[in-house]
Amino acid sequence: MINGAKILSASIRWAMVGGGQGSQIGYIHRSAALRDGLFQLVAGAFDIDPARGRDFGASLGLDPERCYPDYATLFAAEAVRPDGIQAVSVATPNGTHYAICKAALEAGLHVVCEKPLCFTTQQAEELRALAARQGRIVGVTYGYAGHQLIEQAREMIAAGELGEIRIVQMQFAHGFHSEAVEAANPATKWRVDPRMAGPSYVLGDVGTHPLYLSEVMLPQLRIRRLLCTRQSFVRSRAPLEDNAFTLMEYDNGAVGQVWSSAVNAGSMHGQKIRVIGSRASLEWWDERPNQLSFEVQGQPARILERGMGYLHPAALADDRIGAGHPEGLFEAWSNLYRRYALAMDAADRGQPAPERYPDIDAGVEGVRWVEHCVRSADAGAVWVDYV
Amino acid sequence: MINGAKILSASIRWAMVGGGQGSQIGYIHRSAALRDGLFQLVAGAFDIDPARGRDFGASLGLDPERCYPDYATLFAAEAVRPDGIQAVSVATPNGTHYAICKAALEAGLHVVCEKPLCFTTQQAEELRALAARQGRIVGVTYGYAGHQLIEQAREMIAAGELGEIRIVQMQFAHGFHSEAVEAANPATKWRVDPRMAGPSYVLGDVGTHPLYLSEVMLPQLRIRRLLCTRQSFVRSRAPLEDNAFTLMEYDNGAVGQVWSSAVNAGSMHGQKIRVIGSRASLEWWDERPNQLSFEVQGQPARILERGMGYLHPAALADDRIGAGHPEGLFEAWSNLYRRYALAMDAADRGQPAPERYPDIDAGVEGVRWVEHCVRSADAGAVWVDYV
Amino acid sequence: MINGAKILSASIRWAMVGGGQGSQIGYIHRSAALRDGLFQLVAGAFDIDPARGRDFGASLGLDPERCYPDYATLFAAEAVRPDGIQAVSVATPNGTHYAICKAALEAGLHVVCEKPLCFTTQQAEELRALAARQGRIVGVTYGYAGHQLIEQAREMIAAGELGEIRIVQMQFAHGFHSEAVEAANPATKWRVDPRMAGPSYVLGDVGTHPLYLSEVMLPQLRIRRLLCTRQSFVRSRAPLEDNAFTLMEYDNGAVGQVWSSAVNAGSMHGQKIRVIGSRASLEWWDERPNQLSFEVQGQPARILERGMGYLHPAALADDRIGAGHPEGLFEAWSNLYRRYALAMDAADRGQPAPERYPDIDAGVEGVRWVEHCVRSADAGAVWVDYV
Amino acid sequence: MINGAKILSASIRWAMVGGGQGSQIGYIHRSAALRDGLFQLVAGAFDIDPARGRDFGASLGLDPERCYPDYATLFAAEAVRPDGIQAVSVATPNGTHYAICKAALEAGLHVVCEKPLCFTTQQAEELRALAARQGRIVGVTYGYAGHQLIEQAREMIAAGELGEIRIVQMQFAHGFHSEAVEAANPATKWRVDPRMAGPSYVLGDVGTHPLYLSEVMLPQLRIRRLLCTRQSFVRSRAPLEDNAFTLMEYDNGAVGQVWSSAVNAGSMHGQKIRVIGSRASLEWWDERPNQLSFEVQGQPARILERGMGYLHPAALADDRIGAGHPEGLFEAWSNLYRRYALAMDAADRGQPAPERYPDIDAGVEGVRWVEHCVRSADAGAVWVDYV
Ligand SMILES: NC(=O)c1ccc[n+]([C@@H]2O[C@H](COP(=O)([O-])OP(=O)(O)OC[C@H]3O[C@@H](n4cnc5c(N)ncnc54)[C@H](O)[C@@H]3O)[C@@H](O)[C@H]2O)c1
Ligand SMILES: NC(=O)c1ccc[n+]([C@@H]2O[C@H](COP(=O)([O-])OP(=O)(O)OC[C@H]3O[C@@H](n4cnc5c(N)ncnc54)[C@H](O)[C@@H]3O)[C@@H](O)[C@H]2O)c1
Ligand SMILES: NC(=O)c1ccc[n+]([C@@H]2O[C@H](COP(=O)([O-])OP(=O)(O)OC[C@H]3O[C@@H](n4cnc5c(N)ncnc54)[C@H](O)[C@@H]3O)[C@@H](O)[C@H]2O)c1
Ligand SMILES: NC(=O)c1ccc[n+]([C@@H]2O[C@H](COP(=O)([O-])OP(=O)(O)OC[C@H]3O[C@@H](n4cnc5c(N)ncnc54)[C@H](O)[C@@H]3O)[C@@H](O)[C@H]2O)c1
Repeated sequence: MINGAKILSASIRWAMVGGGQGSQIGYIHRSAALRDGLFQLVAGAFDIDPARGRDFGASLGLDPERCYPDYATLFAAEAVRPDGIQAVSVATPNGTHYAICKAALEAGLHVVCEKPLCFTTQQAEELRALAARQGRIVGVTYGYAGHQLIEQAREMIAAGELGEIRIVQMQFAHGFHSEAVEAANPATKWRVDPRMAGPSYVLGDVGTHPLYLSEVMLPQLRIRRLLCTRQSFVRSRAPLEDNAFTLMEYDNGAVGQVWSSAVNAGSMHGQKIRVIGSRASLEWWDERPNQLSFEVQGQPARILERGMGYLHPAALADDRIGAGHPEGLFEAWSNLYRRYALAMDAADRGQPAPERYPDIDAGVEGVRWVEHCVRSADAGAVWVDYV
Repeated sequence: MINGAKILSASIRWAMVGGGQGSQIGYIHRSAALRDGLFQLVAGAFDIDPARGRDFGASLGLDPERCYPDYATLFAAEAVRPDGIQAVSVATPNGTHYAICKAALEAGLHVVCEKPLCFTTQQAEELRALAARQGRIVGVTYGYAGHQLIEQAREMIAAGELGEIRIVQMQFAHGFHSEAVEAANPATKWRVDPRMAGPSYVLGDVGTHPLYLSEVMLPQLRIRRLLCTRQSFVRSRAPLEDNAFTLMEYDNGAVGQVWSSAVNAGSMHGQKIRVIGSRASLEWWDERPNQLSFEVQGQPARILERGMGYLHPAALADDRIGAGHPEGLFEAWSNLYRRYALAMDAADRGQPAPERYPDIDAGVEGVRWVEHCVRSADAGAVWVDYV
Repeated sequence: MINGAKILSASIRWAMVGGGQGSQIGYIHRSAALRDGLFQLVAGAFDIDPARGRDFGASLGLDPERCYPDYATLFAAEAVRPDGIQAVSVATPNGTHYAICKAALEAGLHVVCEKPLCFTTQQAEELRALAARQGRIVGVTYGYAGHQLIEQAREMIAAGELGEIRIVQMQFAHGFHSEAVEAANPATKWRVDPRMAGPSYVLGDVGTHPLYLSEVMLPQLRIRRLLCTRQSFVRSRAPLEDNAFTLMEYDNGAVGQVWSSAVNAGSMHGQKIRVIGSRASLEWWDERPNQLSFEVQGQPARILERGMGYLHPAALADDRIGAGHPEGLFEAWSNLYRRYALAMDAADRGQPAPERYPDIDAGVEGVRWVEHCVRSADAGAVWVDYV
Repeated sequence: MINGAKILSASIRWAMVGGGQGSQIGYIHRSAALRDGLFQLVAGAFDIDPARGRDFGASLGLDPERCYPDYATLFAAEAVRPDGIQAVSVATPNGTHYAICKAALEAGLHVVCEKPLCFTTQQAEELRALAARQGRIVGVTYGYAGHQLIEQAREMIAAGELGEIRIVQMQFAHGFHSEAVEAANPATKWRVDPRMAGPSYVLGDVGTHPLYLSEVMLPQLRIRRLLCTRQSFVRSRAPLEDNAFTLMEYDNGAVGQVWSSAVNAGSMHGQKIRVIGSRASLEWWDERPNQLSFEVQGQPARILERGMGYLHPAALADDRIGAGHPEGLFEAWSNLYRRYALAMDAADRGQPAPERYPDIDAGVEGVRWVEHCVRSADAGAVWVDYV
C-alpha cells in the first residue's frame, strides 16, 4: 500500500517539453510525476509559443530563467548547470517526439515520451539503440496500463485461469470527434494533419492503448499477420482515418481485433479489452477501472474489485486507499511514474529496472503496429505479414 | 396494446415438423403460435423418430392419428382432409429445411421456417420463386426482430435521429460451446456436422440474427463487399467454424462488422447491435431487450424503455403489459407469429401482408450472407464482392 | 424444462371476473392461464359495464351467452350447466375482491384472486375458513414470485449460504403517479379512492409484492413489530398514501424495511429485494429477473443467470427456453398458473397441492401487513406489535 | 480546468496529527494537500507511538526534529519557530478530535479535521465559537463532497429541475465488518469502542457522509424530527451499532432516510443518494462518481458524465483531465483541500472564503445528527424532535 513514503533518496530533477497552458495531457504528467516526491519540476519548454511557455512555467512556480523557449535551449542550458535536469517528459504533438527524444537522449537524459513514440519503426529502433547506448531509460505513457487490475489480469492469464487463449477483443472508440471539431480546436487540429500526427490518427492515438494492454496481459502472443481497414468519415481528415478495424492472427492460432474510433457518436471512452480462453474470459473497461469481470464458462460471472484481499499481490502493490473507494486515471499514471522513477534510479546505478513499465520496447511495438495497419489499409485492406 | 382479442375470424390450422421432445426451439414456436388463438395445432411430424414423435404429439393433446411419421406423410394425409392443415412450421436441423419447405409449398401450405432457410442462395431463390408461384407466405424466425424496441430503432433511424449512418457493430457471441460439448449433446452435434448444419456453424447459427436486425433497422444499406475470417477453436469442428469475424463495406461508405461465436467463454448471449451515425448512436442488447440506449454526441446518454409513451407508435403496438414489466423472448416470437398469421390470412384473400415480417427475402439474405462469408474465409479471408 | 406437454388430463373450465377491455392486468391472467392448455376460458363477467363486457368476451372468442353482466349471474348460470366453470379469476378493483371471492367459493369454485385479497384481516380469515370448508383453493397473484431465480434464492438461503439472516431490504418504488394522473385515468382513479382501494394505496398495491418475495425466500422469519410512515405527496390522494416507509423487526433479531412508492419520479418498477446474512447477500431486481446477485463478503460478487446448470433443480423446473434468452413477467405468471392448476386438480382429488404457490395464506398475510402499516402510520408512525 | 498552476502565492506550512504508518486515511490527506503546491508538509505528530511517528515522518522526507511525539509538543514547538506551521490536519481516532482541534485553534492554527468532529453538539458548538473568535477556519473531510457531479446535482436542484423535493434516499452500507474483524485489526478495533469511537459506530463513521451530500444538494431542507433504530449484529460491538436505519421528516413535508451499515455483506461501499422531486430524480453512487443519473418522469433516463460541456460551470471548475477519463476519490479530496487552502488564505487576509467547503457548520451538523439518532435509538427507536 502506497502511503507517500519517499522511495528515492532524492527527487529526480525533471523538466517537461510541451504540456503547456491548455494542453490536454500536460497536467496528468505533472500530477503523476510530482506525487510523493518522485520528481521535482525544475525546468521546461512548455509551449510552442516561448512567451506563453515562460508565463506558464512561472504559474507552476518555476524559476522563469529555467522556462526555456524551446527544447534545444532547455537541454543545452540545463546540461551546464550543476543542478541540471536528469529527466524530461515529452508531451508535445506526435510529429516532434522523435527529434525531442533523440536530443534528450543525446543530452544524457532519461525520457518519458508520449505515444506514439515516433512515425516509423526505423526511427523507433534508432531511439531504442540510442537509449541503450546512453544507458538511459525511455518510458512511454500507455497510462491505462497503470491500473491495478491490469496486473490482476496478467497474473490470472499467466496462471492459466483462462485456459488456452483464443480471442482478444480490443476497442478504444469514443465519439468526441464525430464532427469536424478540429476547425475550432487546435489540440484536435494537429491530430488530423499527417505532418504532425504521423501516418495515422485513431490507430496511433487510441488503438495503441488497448494493444499495449494486450501486450501486458499476454506477453507470449505474437502477431503473425494483420489486416486493417480505415475510414475518414469526416472527409477533410483524409488521408488520416477517424475509424479503423484491425484483424490480427497470432502465432498460436488465436485471433484478435482492435476497433479504433473517434466517431463512435455518443460514446465516452469505449476502451475495452476482453481476453477469451478455452475455459474463461476476462473483461476490463477503462471507464470502470476498479472492476474486472471474470467469466468462467458454466459458472456465474464474477466481478473482481480493486483493493480486495483475494487479488494477486502484484495487483495490490499500488493500492493507495483500499477497496470500495474508486481510484482513477491519475493513480494509474502515478503508478507508471513511480516505475519510471525506479527504473531511472536503477539505471543510474547501472542496474535493471526493478518493475516492468511501458518502456522503449512498448513504444517501438506501437509504432510497428500502426505502420502495419496503415500499410494494410493503404493496400486495400489486405493481409500483411507482421515483421 | 395486445389483450388477447382474436385478430382472425378463425384460428389457422397448423402443424409442426420437428420441434419434438427435448428439442431446443420447438416450444417457443408453439407458445408463440398458439397465443391468443392465432393458430391451432392439429397435426405434426415432430421427430426424426416416428414413435417418439407420436408420443410427443399425444402429450401435446393432439389426435395421435395426426401425428405422422414424417413430413411427406403429414403433407399428403392432411391434404386430403377437409379440416387439413393450412400452415406448417419447420423446426428441424438445417439440412432438412430446403426439402421440407419445398414440399410444404408444393402442398399449398404457408410455411414458417427456421433459419438458415437452406444451404445455398440458389436453393433459397428457388423457394422464393415457388412461394410466389403458389401465393403462399414463408416466414423465417429471426425471433429477436419481434422485440418492440427494434421497431423504435428503425423509426428513429428513418427519422434521421442518428444523422448519416457510418458504422454498424454487430455480435452474437456466446460461450456455451467453448468445449466440445457436442460429444454428449445431440442438439449440438448436428450443428457442427456440415451435412446437417450446412456450410457454416456460427455464421448461420447466430451471426445471421443481428444481421437481420440490421436489415430491419437500416433498410437502405446494401453490402458492397465483405471479408470473413473463421476459426475452429475446437479442432474437431473443422471445417465448420466456432468463431468468425466479418467485415463489411456498404454502398454508402458505411462499414459494418459481425462477430459470430460459440466460444466466447463465460458470455451468455452476447447479441448486440450498435448503429452509429454522424450525430448519435443506438445500441440494443438481446439480454436486456426492454432497453435501448440512445447516445447523442455531446448529450447525456438516454435509456429508452419499452412501453413508454414517448416511443414511436410502431414500438408500442405490440405492448402487452405496460412499461416497467419486462417482456422476454416469448413476446418477441409471439409478435412475429402474429404478423405471420396476418400475412397468411391476407394472402388467402389475395392481399399483401399488412405488416412487415421476416419473410422469404430475409431468409434468402441470410443464406446469401453466409455463402459470401464462407467463400471469403475459404479463400484465405479475402474481400469478396457481394452479389 | 417446460415444452407445452399437457400436465392435466383436461383443461380446467375457467372464467374471469374483471380484466376487461383496457384493463391493466386482465391480459396477463389470460395469457398465463391459457398457456399450454391448463385452463380454457369459457365464460366471464369482464366489465363493470355489461355491454362492454359482453363485446369484449366475444372478441376473445367466447360464446356471448356465457359473457354475463355480473359475477352473481355468472356463478349462478354456470352452476347449472353441465359444462359449467370450475374456476374463476378475479381481476377487478380491490374493493370488490372480498364479495366476489366469497361468492365464488360459495359456488364451489376454485379462485385466483388479485391482491390485495380484501381490506381487513378479519375478512381474509373468513375467506380462508370458507375455502377450507369448501375444499377449494385460492391463489393470489403475487406474480413476481413465479420468476425462477426466486426459487434459487429460497434454496440458497435454506442451505445456509448467506449465514444467519440479518437484514431484509425491500422496495417497490415506481414513479408513474408522480403527478395526479388519476384525473385522466380510470385505472388509477380507483386506486386512490379508499372505497375501492381499501385502507392503503401503495402499501397494498406495490409494497406487498416484495413482502411476499421475502416470505418465499425466508419462510422462518416472523415480524415482531413494525413502524410505518406514509405520505400523500399528491395531496388529493389523502388519506391514501403514495409513498410509505415500513421498518420491521423480526423475531430472530433481524430487521427489515419496505419502501413502497408511486412517486419515485423517473424510476421504472424499482422492485428489489436484498437479503443480507452474516456471510453473504442476495439481491434480485424485477426489471432484470433473469439475474441474481450473490455477494459473499470477501469474494468477488457473482451474477447467477436463469437457466444455467449450476442452479438448484427447483430453479430450473420452470425453464422454457434455456439460459441466455430472457424470460419475462409472462413466464413468471405462467409458472404460477401452472401451480394453481396443479393445486386445483389435486384438490379435486382430495389431495394436497404438489407445489408451493401464493395461496390464501399469502393473501391473508398481505392484508395483515397492510393493516398493521396503516395502524402504525395513522397513530403517528409508531411501533405496533405484529399480531 | 485545473492544470497545476499555483493558486496561492506561497504553499501553506502544514502538519498532520495522526495519519501515520499503516493508517487508513492519512495518505489521502497528504496526497490531496500536497497536490499542486497548496500545502507543504513541514511537521507532524503522526502516531500514537512517538518513535514510529518520527520514523514515519522521516520516511516522508521531514526533518526528524519536526516529527513530534504528540500534538501538544507539536503545537508548542512550532509556535516558536519563525517558519512554524500555519495549518494542521487531524486524522486520529474520533475520541481525540475535540481536544486536538481545540488545542490547534488555541495555537492559532487553521484546522482540517476528520469526521466526526467530536462527540457532542455542545463540544462542536464550542469549537465553532472558538474558531470564530480566533478567525481560523475548520474544514471537515466529508471527502465525497469534492466530486464534481455533486455540484451538478446542487445546481440542478437549485434550478428547480426536480420540481418540489419529496424524498431523499441515502445509504452508506458496506460489508467489510460483517464479522468481528476488529479482533485482528486495530483500525477497526477503536471504531467499536465507545471511548474512542464516540456514541455511535456506523452512524458517525459512514452515515454522516451521504447526510452531508444531502446538505450540499438541498441547502434549504431542515430536519424536523427523526427516528433511528440501530443494531449490533456482531454482539460484542454493543452498545455501538453496526447497522442503523434513520427516518427523517423535513420541514417542507419531504421525508428522508439513511441506511448506515458495516454488515451489508458482500457490498463494496454502497454509498448512494437519490433525491426525488415532483418532476424528476437524481441519483449518485460513490463507486461510479463520474456518472449522475437524471430521471425525468415520462422521459428516458439520462446519464450525465463528468467533464462534459453540458454540465453547469460549477461542475466543471474542478475538471483535471476531461470527460471519459475516470477521476476518483483522490481528486475529490484534492478539490476539498484546494477550497480549504483558499479559505485559509482568505481568512488570513480577513476575507470570507471564496468557495463553499465542508466547514465547521458541516462538522456541527454531523455531530448533532448522530446525537439525535442515538437518542432516538436508545429510547426504543422513537421519534425525536430535531433541535
Ligand atoms: N497517453 C495518453 O493517454 C495521451 C492522452 C492524450 C494525449 N496524448 C499524447 O500527448 C501528446 C500531446 O497531446 P495533447 O493532447 O496534450 O496536445 P495539445 O495540443 O493539447 O498540447 C500540446 C502542447 O505541446 C506544446 N508544444 C507544441 N509543440 C511544441 C514544441 N515544439 N515544443 C514545446 N512545446 C510544444 C503546445 O504548446 C501545447 O502546450 C500527443 O503526442 C498525444 O498523442 C497521450
Ligand atoms: N430462431 C432461433 O432463434 C433459433 C434458435 C435455436 C434453433 N434454431 C433453429 O431451429 C432448428 C432446430 O434447432 P433445435 O436447436 O431445436 O434442434 P434440436 O436438435 O434440439 O431439435 C430438432 C428436432 O427436430 C426433429 N427432427 C430432426 N429431423 C427431423 C425430420 N426429418 N423430420 C421431423 N423431425 C425431425 C428432432 O427429432 C428434434 O425434435 C435449426 O434449424 C436451428 O438453426 C433457431
Ligand atoms: N398482481 C399484480 O401484479 C397486479 C398488477 C396490476 C393490478 N393488480 C390488481 O388487479 C386488480 C385490477 O387492477 P387493474 O389495474 O387491472 O384495474 P383496471 O381498472 O385496469 O381494470 C379493472 C377491470 O375490472 C372491471 N370491473 C370493475 N368492477 C367490476 C365488477 N364489479 N365486475 C366485473 N368487472 C369489473 C373493469 O371494467 C375493468 O375491466 C386490482 O386489484 C389490482 O390491485 C395486480
Ligand atoms: N473522511 C473519510 O472518508 C474517512 C475515512 C476513514 C477514516 N476517517 C476518519 O479518520 C480518522 C482516522 O481514521 P483511520 O481509519 O485512518 O484510523 P487508523 O486507526 O487507521 O489510523 C489512526 C492514526 O492515528 C494515529 N494516532 C492515534 N492516536 C493519536 C494521537 N493521540 N496522536 C497522534 N496520532 C495518533 C495512529 O497511530 C494512526 O496512525 C477517524 O476519525 C475516522 O473517522 C474518515
